[in-house]
Amino acid sequence: MDFITILGLVAATLTTFSFVPQMLKTWRSKSAKDVSFVMLISFNLGIFLWLIYGISLNALPIIFANSITLFFNLIILWLKIKYK
Amino acid sequence: MDFITILGLVAATLTTFSFVPQMLKTWRSKSAKDVSFVMLISFNLGIFLWLIYGISLNALPIIFANSITLFFNLIILWLKIKYK
Repeated sequence: MDFITILGLVAATLTTFSFVPQMLKTWRSKSAKDVSFVMLISFNLGIFLWLIYGISLNALPIIFANSITLFFNLIILWLKIKYK
Repeated sequence: MDFITILGLVAATLTTFSFVPQMLKTWRSKSAKDVSFVMLISFNLGIFLWLIYGISLNALPIIFANSITLFFNLIILWLKIKYK
């Protein structure tokens, strides 16, 4: 595996799992007042389209990273609505 | 331009500019208590690596989307530190 592929995998892992601390913080504090609802909606929609894009190209890294990111961000969106 | 390329451009635009509402909300409310600091650090680091990845591949869409995303998220990180 060459350096650039490793770089892409590390980047994908960092950006994908960076939403876990936000999910846990929102779940623990039961507060999401400062998290923008408009951001969550547009970001989730964008990640969903990236997922369709990855499926259309049969590109596993794009499918893998974006399905996990979508999963975490839908939970954050659900918590945002729940604790509104 | 084929459908899949348009899908990728719309996905990139949505995910990139979804951070503008978060940036504006944090700037107006002068509060980022509910936004996870750990997420901002790991997300910014991941986006920076995506940018290096794009430059290494000379892939303009990846460079374009991630430089803008990094710009917005560094501002959100700065506001988070400022209003701590």
